[in-house]
Amino acid sequence: MGSVTVYGPPISPAVSRVLACLLEKDVVFNLVNIDMSKAQHKSPDFLKIQPFGQVPAFQDEHTTLFESRAICRYICDKYADRGNRSLLGRRGGGLVERAHVEQWLEAEGQSFNPPSSTLVFQLAFAPQMGLPQDPAAILLNEGKLAKVLDVYERRLQEQVPGRGRVLARRPLPPP
Amino acid sequence: MGSVTVYGPPISPAVSRVLACLLEKDVVFNLVNIDMSKAQHKSPDFLKIQPFGQVPAFQDEHTTLFESRAICRYICDKYADRGNRSLLGRRGGGLVERAHVEQWLEAEGQSFNPPSSTLVFQLAFAPQMGLPQDPAAILLNEGKLAKVLDVYERRLQEQVPGRGRVLARRPLPPP
Repeated sequence: MGSVTVYGPPISPAVSRVLACLLEKDVVFNLVNIDMSKAQHKSPDFLKIQPFGQVPAFQDEHTTLFESRAICRYICDKYADRGNRSLLGRRGGGLVERAHVEQWLEAEGQSFNPPSSTLVFQLAFAPQMGLPQDPAAILLNEGKLAKVLDVYERRLQEQVPGRGRVLARRPLPPP
Repeated sequence: MGSVTVYGPPISPAVSRVLACLLEKDVVFNLVNIDMSKAQHKSPDFLKIQPFGQVPAFQDEHTTLFESRAICRYICDKYADRGNRSLLGRRGGGLVERAHVEQWLEAEGQSFNPPSSTLVFQLAFAPQMGLPQDPAAILLNEGKLAKVLDVYERRLQEQVPGRGRVLARRPLPPP
């Protein structure tokens, strides 16, 4: 097996973000489940790697990291010659091309993820956990997400004419 | 004057994040105010550079960028030989040192900034704008911010023994 280990349940969007990056980069990895229902993400050993008590945590030989997007950047830089070589901009694209990718990575983290992760929790996890859904939060975040996806659509139309609607919004299931 | 222009009001935390980076890097820049009370951040010309209609937007010769943290990374990479050379890890520190910086940059964006920016709005901007404060939101986000600062304190104590309490929390002014 490889030297890379991801700690966390793959159902977590942040964990699956790292797994998607590893798969794109053809990097072999070990996946160690963290049972959040047993508060394993708050255990002293886990907190040594992930001081905020969140998932995922990541290890590559003697390097440990947290924060899924920082982990993805590390994977792309460390394994530059494997798998998809364009995740942070094409090889030889230089710092401007990387900066253009970085601005959309930040837009994902700052604008797409907050409403998206709230909707995932409200629509997918809350029912499974027997928690009541919050219809007002669902409505509010559907509106926020729609505005973000409109920006994505417009930018796709400008950059790749005729390739828009890639992100065409499907109606979300009723709460 | 230099080739770098920042668009946005410096009172915005995201704009001042970029200005702080430029000052650290000794990069000369022009600052063009964007009057958000007149919705200049929603004008068609501004939306060409910042499609989400937020501040700041950034220009360096023919390169335009948005998202303050992506802009800061670009500034550090483009002007690597100027000013503070350690913002993204020491020169020659390699990809592991940069990844360690990146994980804390992400922690700032994902964990520190949400409660911090809510408190800045509630405690500083809302009164100026004649908007009512939300005591429940202030209490909730003071608690979230305290947990983040506790993690920062512990990590500082571990990394630089005796240098903890750098971030010692001062009581926030009452709402």
